[in-house]
Amino acid sequence: MKLLEEKIIKEGKVLPGNILKVGSFLNQKIDTDLLAAMGKEISHLFESDKVTKIMTVESSGIAIAAAAGIFMRVPVIFAKKHKSGNIDGEVYCASSHSFTHGNDYDMIISKEYISSDDNILLVDDFLASGNALCGMLELAKKAGARIAGAAIAIEKGFQGGGDELRAKGIKVRSLALIESMSEEGIVFRA
Amino acid sequence: MKLLEEKIIKEGKVLPGNILKVGSFLNQKIDTDLLAAMGKEISHLFESDKVTKIMTVESSGIAIAAAAGIFMRVPVIFAKKHKSGNIDGEVYCASSHSFTHGNDYDMIISKEYISSDDNILLVDDFLASGNALCGMLELAKKAGARIAGAAIAIEKGFQGGGDELRAKGIKVRSLALIESMSEEGIVFRA
Repeated sequence: MKLLEEKIIKEGKVLPGNILKVGSFLNQKIDTDLLAAMGKEISHLFESDKVTKIMTVESSGIAIAAAAGIFMRVPVIFAKKHKSGNIDGEVYCASSHSFTHGNDYDMIISKEYISSDDNILLVDDFLASGNALCGMLELAKKAGARIAGAAIAIEKGFQGGGDELRAKGIKVRSLALIESMSEEGIVFRA
Repeated sequence: MKLLEEKIIKEGKVLPGNILKVGSFLNQKIDTDLLAAMGKEISHLFESDKVTKIMTVESSGIAIAAAAGIFMRVPVIFAKKHKSGNIDGEVYCASSHSFTHGNDYDMIISKEYISSDDNILLVDDFLASGNALCGMLELAKKAGARIAGAAIAIEKGFQGGGDELRAKGIKVRSLALIESMSEEGIVFRA
């Protein structure tokens, strides 16, 4: 997606540890015209896939998932990272690891919001090694739901998570797919 | 907002401890047609207020803030609840307390995303005692920004936070304002 690639080149900052800082338009501060364009694009990419629900994990995936959900007119469910007071009843749980925050965490989703009738589109802001997506896949699997695919804003292709999922037959579509990056510049996969 | 009130009556569950569970359409699972309608309504309510940015706090306010931002075409900034690896540089910080989770937490926002030129609309899913909003007000004040007002999906009027803010002269608009609630039923403020 040209608009997103241009924004990354213009405003993204490569920090040590393979971190791409996009706080000025995707995290922290969200460019809502870009957000709407990303939601519309995801809607186009999966329009033939009979998606029944979008799944994301709190918190930076929520805005993109919401934008995609508005255009696709399907509900968005989001996994929470820790059990909170207002989730009652039974939950599905999966473990994941955040490289950004350097910790392990549990992803939790209420059983009542996902079922074997669902065909789930996973949405997230970043895909690197694929830990968050694997956690979401596990939640969907536990519910017996099918996976329509995964829509990602920015994939760090050089970290391999996206290609591993593609090799498993999952339809992964990234709006910007970075082949390599350093302080000298960012190269997108052709 | 009639649509939201009807949804609360139909699907909301009053739990012990003044908790209103709206996980089937607002948290956990988001009804995206309703979300778009709420975003549009907030946009109408503040169309004359020259809002430059929307502020919310992670994570359940993000979807509504994003929807409002898409219709108002202003950026959304969100305060994070703990310092994470990809916020660099200087931050504004405010303390708050969550009754839902029963803990204190810090709200943090990068100084680079908010300034004294801003006229901020605060957006959140719930307003009860007003702790989260007060934290956001403190962040905006530290940046020297003006406050256009606060837009809330569901206000629990009986907990007083909204009326305290109105008494301070802040334009608070809640899409559904609950006067009282119990397992017997929910009454909205006329």
